[in-house]
Amino acid sequence: MAKIIAINAGSSSLKFQLFEMPSEEVITKGLIERIGLTDAVFNISVNGEKIKEVTEIPDHDVAVKILLGKLTELGIIASLDEIDGIGHRVVHGGEEFADSAVITDEVIDKIDTLSELAPLHNPANLTGIRAFQHVLPNVPAVAVYDTAFHQTMPEKSYLYSLPYEYYEQYGIRKYGFHGTSHKYVSQRAAELLGRPIEQLRLISCHLGNGASIAAIEGGKSMDTSMGFTPLAGVTMGTRSGNIDPALIPFIMEKTDQSADEVLQVLNKKSGLLGISGFSSDLRDITEQAKEGNDRAELALQIFADNIHKYIGSYASGMNGVDAIIFTAGIGENSEIVRARVLQGLEFMGVYWDPTLNKISGEESFINYPHSPVKVMVIPTNEEVMIARDVCRLAGI
Amino acid sequence: MAKIIAINAGSSSLKFQLFEMPSEEVITKGLIERIGLTDAVFNISVNGEKIKEVTEIPDHDVAVKILLGKLTELGIIASLDEIDGIGHRVVHGGEEFADSAVITDEVIDKIDTLSELAPLHNPANLTGIRAFQHVLPNVPAVAVYDTAFHQTMPEKSYLYSLPYEYYEQYGIRKYGFHGTSHKYVSQRAAELLGRPIEQLRLISCHLGNGASIAAIEGGKSMDTSMGFTPLAGVTMGTRSGNIDPALIPFIMEKTDQSADEVLQVLNKKSGLLGISGFSSDLRDITEQAKEGNDRAELALQIFADNIHKYIGSYASGMNGVDAIIFTAGIGENSEIVRARVLQGLEFMGVYWDPTLNKISGEESFINYPHSPVKVMVIPTNEEVMIARDVCRLAGI
Repeated sequence: MAKIIAINAGSSSLKFQLFEMPSEEVITKGLIERIGLTDAVFNISVNGEKIKEVTEIPDHDVAVKILLGKLTELGIIASLDEIDGIGHRVVHGGEEFADSAVITDEVIDKIDTLSELAPLHNPANLTGIRAFQHVLPNVPAVAVYDTAFHQTMPEKSYLYSLPYEYYEQYGIRKYGFHGTSHKYVSQRAAELLGRPIEQLRLISCHLGNGASIAAIEGGKSMDTSMGFTPLAGVTMGTRSGNIDPALIPFIMEKTDQSADEVLQVLNKKSGLLGISGFSSDLRDITEQAKEGNDRAELALQIFADNIHKYIGSYASGMNGVDAIIFTAGIGENSEIVRARVLQGLEFMGVYWDPTLNKISGEESFINYPHSPVKVMVIPTNEEVMIARDVCRLAGI
Repeated sequence: MAKIIAINAGSSSLKFQLFEMPSEEVITKGLIERIGLTDAVFNISVNGEKIKEVTEIPDHDVAVKILLGKLTELGIIASLDEIDGIGHRVVHGGEEFADSAVITDEVIDKIDTLSELAPLHNPANLTGIRAFQHVLPNVPAVAVYDTAFHQTMPEKSYLYSLPYEYYEQYGIRKYGFHGTSHKYVSQRAAELLGRPIEQLRLISCHLGNGASIAAIEGGKSMDTSMGFTPLAGVTMGTRSGNIDPALIPFIMEKTDQSADEVLQVLNKKSGLLGISGFSSDLRDITEQAKEGNDRAELALQIFADNIHKYIGSYASGMNGVDAIIFTAGIGENSEIVRARVLQGLEFMGVYWDPTLNKISGEESFINYPHSPVKVMVIPTNEEVMIARDVCRLAGI
């Protein structure tokens, strides 16, 4: 028996989940928000009860100290010695990391170097890693990369049709993200299907505020819709997904914005928000579409159509598909998105049951029994994947 | 009986083809190159014989005068009065033109305004239109737009997930190109299949130095891979096709280039040329790949994989496909590209015959007889479509 804490550090936040391993029982979990800002908030769930405290948390070191203090104070653990391992989510592992890695100075240096490819995320992730090093220097820690699962993509999937030296000199290629989630749901799908993952062709749709689709063959990622950054692929809450690249200079000229400003528009003001004009939240969009708002309806159509077409694309990439998986906030909970995505895939053997599709947030098959292609809703669990990797790599 | 001349004017070139209608017999055709440059070249084919003359051609007016002079001089026509109509290829018809249009001052103004969306092409097309107006002011002329066929796309296919006002204010949307070619081969496919086009779901692959894929349902374009400009979609000779849009600011910073310079790289130095490092010509790439050049092999793989996945994507968009069409230089002639594109589509009912696939440049079915999805090679003929539209719209 061991206790492992899974950490996801953002620039002003820190999510945590404490596991009992190998049972994978969640002992506690929570979120610290507004670190370094006024009125930081510490949230923690203990035995189903939610505790919320507003306090001053100037930096991640203090956040980690408060967190660990609370764990003993609330009697969740008797002493810090009970923590056997720490797992850190790290967004970008580049080509360096095709698997999670025990954190060493060398690993930290590499994550730091890779900040160039993920300037918003890797530095924040490192802040979390360093804060735990300061407070628990002797507890083994493991970095779990969002990109690692996609390192199995073949060259024809990951290389852009750009001058080849851009790849060699600047690392310009498709990396893909949400890897830990795609890996989790694909493994879980194999279990639920009762078949060895080596024999399966899966398409995993991770649909949250960020969204990506992955083609997973024999347990390995063969292609994914996000690219060099998480901007690419399908329409998302505020991100454009793929557009004609020639639009960037055109928009720059028309709107008198710099390339970075246009990039901000593509990341923050596009997607469902850009189309609908009022919200990036699919729940708002769905509600307004039902009430007859044309632009909300259009946003919904475009979002679903994008995913629908990626499924066809990835099915052709694997010469068919055994199961389609929906996960993350929208994938787990939106009946209407799943329905629209799945509508019109009979040609490739997808027969889904509208009654079963009413499910929300539970592991479930939503296909008709006779459907050659199975369709599944699987709530994702990146945290448990992090805890598992800590045990595996730190030998716990 | 009528004589119609089809014109495709570029910035320094003018292609022409003279038809006898309604028989659609080609009386003569040719190409004037290097207009406005030193040593312009006039090429014409008469009765299978090719004539080539190097001369001075300062502008398109002179080019048209020389062309018309040659037609009488060579005895192809007895007098210019025999020309009953002129058809001009125009690249961009925007949302203004969902069909070809008889050229009027108003039409010319609109084509001029649309130059903003096609700065390299529409002005050149207009030069051709004006030159013929100067020389044959009383002969009816028709503009045939590359974009018109795609105006049937539904909003969910043509709208980008950008702030909606970009569409309203700047016309930012997917237009699609090669429309005349996609329309021609889809109509021809219906004839060859002996089925009404209204009942068919077709995927047309126009693969030349520029390449685009179209989903055509009931004779109408439902989606296409090119976008706001011809840069988008699949890998091409020198064009990148789709990339993560965030790469543009990244490349700008890394290579110290402006947005327009990066756009030039995406248009001129990417695609097959960028990947292979030595050629944009698929014939060179194929040859080198056979000789073991890894980068040529990779270019070939990426090109074919892009098209393969678009076929899956568009099949899912129409819930299946009745026939896949290959056209244009590569589509008509490259056995290896077709083979690689078609490989691994059995899941959707595509069974192609490697022996039949050896065909080059001829109308032919290349599927096995039992294949539910038919696969066809159809040489494109944009010129005859232009001539037909002149007759239809000018009432000839």
